[in-house]
Amino acid sequence: MQALLSGLRIVEGSAFIAAPMCGMTLAQLGADVIRFDQIGGGLDYHRWPVTSDNTSIYWAEMNKGKRSIAVDLKSDAGREIVTKLICAEGAEGGIFSTNLPARGWLGYERLRARRSDLIQHEIIGDRHGNTALDYTVNAKVGFPYITGPIDDERPVNHVLPAWDIATAYLSAVDILAAERHRRLTGEGQQMKLALADVAIAAMGHLGYIGEVSINGDTRTRHGNYLFGALGRDFVTSDEKRIMLIAITPKQWRGLLDAANLNRGITALGQELKLDLDTEGNRFRARKEICALIEPWVASLSLGELAPILDGCGICWDRYQTVHELVTTDPDCSTDNPMFSSIEQPGIGTYSVPNHVVSSSRIERGSSCPAPRLGQHTDEILFEVIGLDDPEIGRLHDEGVVAQAG
Amino acid sequence: MQALLSGLRIVEGSAFIAAPMCGMTLAQLGADVIRFDQIGGGLDYHRWPVTSDNTSIYWAEMNKGKRSIAVDLKSDAGREIVTKLICAEGAEGGIFSTNLPARGWLGYERLRARRSDLIQHEIIGDRHGNTALDYTVNAKVGFPYITGPIDDERPVNHVLPAWDIATAYLSAVDILAAERHRRLTGEGQQMKLALADVAIAAMGHLGYIGEVSINGDTRTRHGNYLFGALGRDFVTSDEKRIMLIAITPKQWRGLLDAANLNRGITALGQELKLDLDTEGNRFRARKEICALIEPWVASLSLGELAPILDGCGICWDRYQTVHELVTTDPDCSTDNPMFSSIEQPGIGTYSVPNHVVSSSRIERGSSCPAPRLGQHTDEILFEVIGLDDPEIGRLHDEGVVAQAG
Repeated sequence: MQALLSGLRIVEGSAFIAAPMCGMTLAQLGADVIRFDQIGGGLDYHRWPVTSDNTSIYWAEMNKGKRSIAVDLKSDAGREIVTKLICAEGAEGGIFSTNLPARGWLGYERLRARRSDLIQHEIIGDRHGNTALDYTVNAKVGFPYITGPIDDERPVNHVLPAWDIATAYLSAVDILAAERHRRLTGEGQQMKLALADVAIAAMGHLGYIGEVSINGDTRTRHGNYLFGALGRDFVTSDEKRIMLIAITPKQWRGLLDAANLNRGITALGQELKLDLDTEGNRFRARKEICALIEPWVASLSLGELAPILDGCGICWDRYQTVHELVTTDPDCSTDNPMFSSIEQPGIGTYSVPNHVVSSSRIERGSSCPAPRLGQHTDEILFEVIGLDDPEIGRLHDEGVVAQAG
Repeated sequence: MQALLSGLRIVEGSAFIAAPMCGMTLAQLGADVIRFDQIGGGLDYHRWPVTSDNTSIYWAEMNKGKRSIAVDLKSDAGREIVTKLICAEGAEGGIFSTNLPARGWLGYERLRARRSDLIQHEIIGDRHGNTALDYTVNAKVGFPYITGPIDDERPVNHVLPAWDIATAYLSAVDILAAERHRRLTGEGQQMKLALADVAIAAMGHLGYIGEVSINGDTRTRHGNYLFGALGRDFVTSDEKRIMLIAITPKQWRGLLDAANLNRGITALGQELKLDLDTEGNRFRARKEICALIEPWVASLSLGELAPILDGCGICWDRYQTVHELVTTDPDCSTDNPMFSSIEQPGIGTYSVPNHVVSSSRIERGSSCPAPRLGQHTDEILFEVIGLDDPEIGRLHDEGVVAQAG
């Protein structure tokens, strides 16, 4: 069965999360993604987490399923190889994804002179050309001031690099959209996606900008309360913590039935003069409502509670540590068809996720490991650039390219 | 100039964030996205934030640039209209994106009988078929236990619905990949993307799973420290807060030069017996290093500090509240070409983000507002389904469809 993105090639010059994760996503969907790196590795080659001998688990994960070519990017000969790789002929060639400084020899105009329908996708920090990283962007857009316990004013950066992930996936959208456009019109293009703009746009899409602009209002800190409906964390009698959400009318009615709270909520609504059948009013009365739910959850163990919550169609889940997720949750194991146990060269054998979507037509198969740095140097020089053995040998002798051992 | 996704139509049956945001993303790139809703609005029609008269700012943002058709989805006649819409003939038809329960009349097999090359993309909660929401998924994968102040053990849910956003963009990737596959092979498919799996896969991609599986180690709470390199928040003499990151060698050297810390860091490295030229050791010595940076930042006002940081190529940004972002930051205004000031029907005029990527070939133009619910009912019935005026009139009379006032 043909892979979903079969016949699509992306040449990637990248580091850190957003650009490598974009390429890895496309590679897991079946594209031929060739990452080029400086001989010895780029800026992210030892990015944490690392194994005890300083091999980067992060790097391996971010480059699963790609081919790797190692080149001396400081030499003219190395730059010419990368240029030929990016601008290779054929319908599958001519797509360049990067978050390196796309200037000079990697500038769009220079490369376009070699292939007029080139698609060049550049992830940049902000629209002014400054560097930006997930944590700086997050500080700029305001989440640290509304994340964290209500009784603590200190800003809390969320640990998840959410803006990097969003930028990775949006870059993949851009590249597929541009490739479709090229297929239909013959036209290539240069695309620039700024990490900061991804975050700022999301502030608009999620309603944060409208809230300030239209209502003159700004969201305050709500701790672990869900905004605009009913949801919060609760602790069971055996000290397990759960997140419990009633957002739809069905979930709300289910919760009241399960907790035997129909009368209590009616009385509360009368007392507060609020119609608690609307989600907004349930958010307004969240503290009072949760004060009624709290003793009910606290009276039951997780084992007693789980079937009741499931039976009533309530949306909930248990809080787990990452360690619990990895070591005890079947969803994070090969029980989940998204995972396969593979040997990651230089790291070891463990469960690694493949692409997330399941398809009625394309089998997910096994995850592919990351390459060793420069593992595919020779085959890429031969297959894609068309060099012969003596030419490849000469490049090795001159230190222009390197093959993994 | 032709829009990037011109000639692509997606019929969407959706609620909340992930599915509507997927369609909105494709609509902003030029696809014809038709959202169908129950007459009177679906589950998310009054989702917060709302205006003072309970019009949802959230709903408007999530549906920018789409067309809207309002149908009685409980009636057979209404269901037949939506089926015809999803299965409409032509290369641009036959793509259905949904997070509604895709069973019965919306089941893939039923719809595929009407159009054999149908692409049906379903966002589901988890792979077992249970409902899941951003906040429950986040509790499951472990971020709340590693987010928040180091001196506070309470779990902290991050406020940003990061998993919804990731799922939205990844869904758009899936749909474009499937459309490419159909274009090349003639084959459609059913795709299922589970919100929980998006989060669990990211735990793998980011190295969290490998860290536990390979190192037997799990990440602890680091507060606002960046993991694996040097970065943290600092407060200036005028009590502004900045996020400051030195991840590359260039940024690190720049920071030491700017803060005049070369000697101090050399001495610290000797004292701790750590080579502070490697990012991992800088993370190990983060508290001691930051204790040296702290008084330097605290001795300068933001106005004094900013040009120094910029001049040394350090990656940094200011912490802002959402209110400051919206009311004072030019990046969150029409000074940024991503924004245009538009009138959102029923809400008002304010700056709304368009698609994020800038292209050398496709002009960004103005953002499109969201439709009113059912604004395009008649034109869709005529154009896409091919009904004539008397037929459309009859459907209105029978309450099967509704047009916005």
